[in-house]
Amino acid sequence: MRLRLTPRDDSYFEMFADSANNLVIAARLLVELISDGADRDAIGEKMRACEHAGDERTHAIMRRLNESFVTPFDREDIYRLASCLDDVMDSMEAAVDLIGLYGLERLPKGIIDQIEVLERAAELTAEAMPRLRSMKDLTRYWIEINQLENQADQIYRRLLANLFSGEYDALTVLKLKDVIEELETAADAFEHVANTVESIAVKES
Amino acid sequence: MRLRLTPRDDSYFEMFADSANNLVIAARLLVELISDGADRDAIGEKMRACEHAGDERTHAIMRRLNESFVTPFDREDIYRLASCLDDVMDSMEAAVDLIGLYGLERLPKGIIDQIEVLERAAELTAEAMPRLRSMKDLTRYWIEINQLENQADQIYRRLLANLFSGEYDALTVLKLKDVIEELETAADAFEHVANTVESIAVKES
Amino acid sequence: MRLRLTPRDDSYFEMFADSANNLVIAARLLVELISDGADRDAIGEKMRACEHAGDERTHAIMRRLNESFVTPFDREDIYRLASCLDDVMDSMEAAVDLIGLYGLERLPKGIIDQIEVLERAAELTAEAMPRLRSMKDLTRYWIEINQLENQADQIYRRLLANLFSGEYDALTVLKLKDVIEELETAADAFEHVANTVESIAVKES
Repeated sequence: MRLRLTPRDDSYFEMFADSANNLVIAARLLVELISDGADRDAIGEKMRACEHAGDERTHAIMRRLNESFVTPFDREDIYRLASCLDDVMDSMEAAVDLIGLYGLERLPKGIIDQIEVLERAAELTAEAMPRLRSMKDLTRYWIEINQLENQADQIYRRLLANLFSGEYDALTVLKLKDVIEELETAADAFEHVANTVESIAVKES
Repeated sequence: MRLRLTPRDDSYFEMFADSANNLVIAARLLVELISDGADRDAIGEKMRACEHAGDERTHAIMRRLNESFVTPFDREDIYRLASCLDDVMDSMEAAVDLIGLYGLERLPKGIIDQIEVLERAAELTAEAMPRLRSMKDLTRYWIEINQLENQADQIYRRLLANLFSGEYDALTVLKLKDVIEELETAADAFEHVANTVESIAVKES
Repeated sequence: MRLRLTPRDDSYFEMFADSANNLVIAARLLVELISDGADRDAIGEKMRACEHAGDERTHAIMRRLNESFVTPFDREDIYRLASCLDDVMDSMEAAVDLIGLYGLERLPKGIIDQIEVLERAAELTAEAMPRLRSMKDLTRYWIEINQLENQADQIYRRLLANLFSGEYDALTVLKLKDVIEELETAADAFEHVANTVESIAVKES
């Protein structure tokens, strides 16, 4: 471990944890959305509020970065990690927005598997963020996120194949495809967060 | 501000400004393209020339980078900024090419809003590039590009919803969707340029 | 050239060459897949094995990175190059998987041009990796990959236009579009590998 002669600004770790906790809330809104009798308008509104709160947090990290002399790790890595966390939120919000925009009453049943993977990935990410402080015990997090992403891939491809099973007309296929692609993008974005954490750990090691 | 003991190679700032000015020309070709009675073939040709000129500029930046001992900011950031500017051009050119390729006679009216946002983003970017020299007054640029990108998102989603309003058959939806997605990618790419500038400023601050 | 006071860990160059050679194998499986009378199930299986082997190599590079004190170039560049090589494999594997998943018996003839470009790009990449050691003679590689990517773009767009020529119904267009888009993503990913090599060379120059 490197000697640090200056006190580190630990508020970054709290801000990253905050951002990741916000992703847990968003993932749970997705779970709620696909439950029977869900009030989709209300959930859509909460999701937009969640995305707005995420933006606020991202900007707070950027502002802090502009004012800090000493940072716990490279400035550009802090920047990239904040951006990656933001990307996850954007995709989850976009999925909900598309469902409303397209007026999709009925979603394919398998979409619940996609969303449960996102919920788990959000929880793992939120648990890992505080460990950035010590850079310890992060290996397990990467491995689990990678496994989840592989699982998400499988689920996504199965859902894709089902879309073309003959149940849906071409326009409906197009709409549903947009939604499940956005959810797949969210799963990929969780992996980008984990990759960014991994590359930070590699540099600091 | 850091002391600089060596003279900086200021030609980079001019090359970035050149690249960004080229994006303004490209955005105005898009505006022309959707005007009544536009000569689409001629505009397509001009757009390809524009993209070619952009490639030349990008390569000039890369060549200069290979020959410079001192650079105004990190070599990899110069590299990334040049690539991001190039990405914007690629998407605008691809949109025009797809319109020709698909033989799309009639474009949805709302596409003009998408294109006007791109024109404004190009102008803001061209105005900001010379300010890289002093790294001053860039905050306003980021904020405005971010606002434009949010606006572009809204426009894009409204256009998407309109595609499915029943006016178009599935194959036409597919074609138009490719075009408006490419324009949305261009808007995102302008944000990547702004993010790159922001991350450079963060490192240099 | 910089003086190096410590022995460099040259195993990275071998691992990158290994990864790139694996891409050559994968590209040749794509060629095989579109040959008359191809055993698609067997090829799909081989492709998955190939992708798995690629993952193993990527992880070996990451593990080595965690254990190395001295690296031949910046740790984050090694990380990024490994990731980019992995991305190429993922897209090639995804294309094969989609063909199986969608039960696409007949593929458009022009797809062979796309795949031949990928094969050539894989070979060029595999030839270039050992030259990372000396950082010499890499310019030719970038130029050729860039030309191939331009060629791939042209082929891709021609294929796109053909999809809409009236030969296929909307659902079939959607399926085939996914496949040729994935192959186009693989061509782009080869360019990202070349760009990463270029940016490493720029930093080391």
